[in-house]
Amino acid sequence: MTIAKLRVRFAETDQMGIVHHSNYAIWFELARVKWLEERNMSYKEWEESGVSLAVSELNVNYRNAAKFDDEINVEVKLTVAKSRRSHFEYRLFRTADNALIATGRTTHTPTNPQGQAIRLPEQWLSQLQEQLEK
Amino acid sequence: MTIAKLRVRFAETDQMGIVHHSNYAIWFELARVKWLEERNMSYKEWEESGVSLAVSELNVNYRNAAKFDDEINVEVKLTVAKSRRSHFEYRLFRTADNALIATGRTTHTPTNPQGQAIRLPEQWLSQLQEQLEK
Amino acid sequence: MTIAKLRVRFAETDQMGIVHHSNYAIWFELARVKWLEERNMSYKEWEESGVSLAVSELNVNYRNAAKFDDEINVEVKLTVAKSRRSHFEYRLFRTADNALIATGRTTHTPTNPQGQAIRLPEQWLSQLQEQLEK
Amino acid sequence: MTIAKLRVRFAETDQMGIVHHSNYAIWFELARVKWLEERNMSYKEWEESGVSLAVSELNVNYRNAAKFDDEINVEVKLTVAKSRRSHFEYRLFRTADNALIATGRTTHTPTNPQGQAIRLPEQWLSQLQEQLEK
Repeated sequence: MTIAKLRVRFAETDQMGIVHHSNYAIWFELARVKWLEERNMSYKEWEESGVSLAVSELNVNYRNAAKFDDEINVEVKLTVAKSRRSHFEYRLFRTADNALIATGRTTHTPTNPQGQAIRLPEQWLSQLQEQLEK
Repeated sequence: MTIAKLRVRFAETDQMGIVHHSNYAIWFELARVKWLEERNMSYKEWEESGVSLAVSELNVNYRNAAKFDDEINVEVKLTVAKSRRSHFEYRLFRTADNALIATGRTTHTPTNPQGQAIRLPEQWLSQLQEQLEK
Repeated sequence: MTIAKLRVRFAETDQMGIVHHSNYAIWFELARVKWLEERNMSYKEWEESGVSLAVSELNVNYRNAAKFDDEINVEVKLTVAKSRRSHFEYRLFRTADNALIATGRTTHTPTNPQGQAIRLPEQWLSQLQEQLEK
Repeated sequence: MTIAKLRVRFAETDQMGIVHHSNYAIWFELARVKWLEERNMSYKEWEESGVSLAVSELNVNYRNAAKFDDEINVEVKLTVAKSRRSHFEYRLFRTADNALIATGRTTHTPTNPQGQAIRLPEQWLSQLQEQLEK
């Protein structure tokens, strides 16, 4: 598991006084980038090698509103790693009171630079599978 | 069913040359606003009456990448309307070739201005239920 | 002059209950895209021909807050067109009461796909200069 | 002077492969929030006391493109502090090569919760003036 820390930006709030729900997909992504980085699998290198893990599905469950200036921990782990599909799962906590803010999952399909679905090259697949987490 | 038309903004693209996946939640929302408006149920009025239909769950299935300047039709319909939970469902099409870009669903929980879950006031509930669509 | 119409999205508001000031740069851009399009100079074609009009400077004067669901007219005109620098100027009005929301200017530098400053190819330059407005 | 560190998010890029220029206003803002915080003047407290430092003008000069995953230092200092107008100035550097990414300035007008311009209450004004920087 990787934990990415972030601070809620003012621009991320909406007029209900809470974080707009579209931002969670962005937070998931930055946690995923950190997850790859901590395992020496840089997002940038993947892209340069012509493989993207395109997001093919997004699920978010909103539990408690995050607010401006909240410090948030985004926990991310890899729960499925197959040649044509991987899953990352997420849990967001506010560090001040440990409140569960949201849970979520992204499904990823390997694609080439033209955006077509491909089988994940063996080198990346085995790397991912070593990192599977319950 | 309501159809909201939009044109992909340059700022909505990412370095893969496609629309960043976080934007779909924003497009769903603007279609929802239009859905309410066409039925004379303004989002603004709801907020002013102290009721928000907070997004409690978001699901998006990404089928084909949308690109800069694409004209997109966002179809939205109400498929569940209960006192504590409503569902809207979405289908996005690129008008140029009628390609299915994405499908999705949002689940909504009525909340008061403090963000606490409430039962939807009867006036709004009956209005919603008259608008249920298959 | 070109006028782009838009409707303020919920996601564009912040917790002060108004449009977050970063969105105006996005609105300027979509007006610029329409300006080019109305003159048969598509942004897409420019990019494909290897020339981008990169934004090298942005100025915004905020006069009145725009709010959720406001209908906004973004007026844009080209005021300077030189081989190494062009200016677009903007005025934003709320259509309901004709209130001036903001004024602004963007400065653009022609760049190649590597992001290096270049002289604007003659074909584009003469096209732009025919469209100069006071 | 305060320095806010950030890492460029994937969602902040556009299809030119660089950070979309609208994001700099958001980065300026988070640096400003940190500036206030480091001086024990929390943005949140200001808002709660009914005073906002609304952005009335924004200027950005883009020098070098920031890219995905770049680590950026946002330097911010207060250069003008008057009862009706304050200026913050910014310089953004990429830490890897110390390249100057952008410079900018925001002008702020004190407003009440209704968004009307007010004179900055004496307590905040004197606090700001003690923090003026060349």
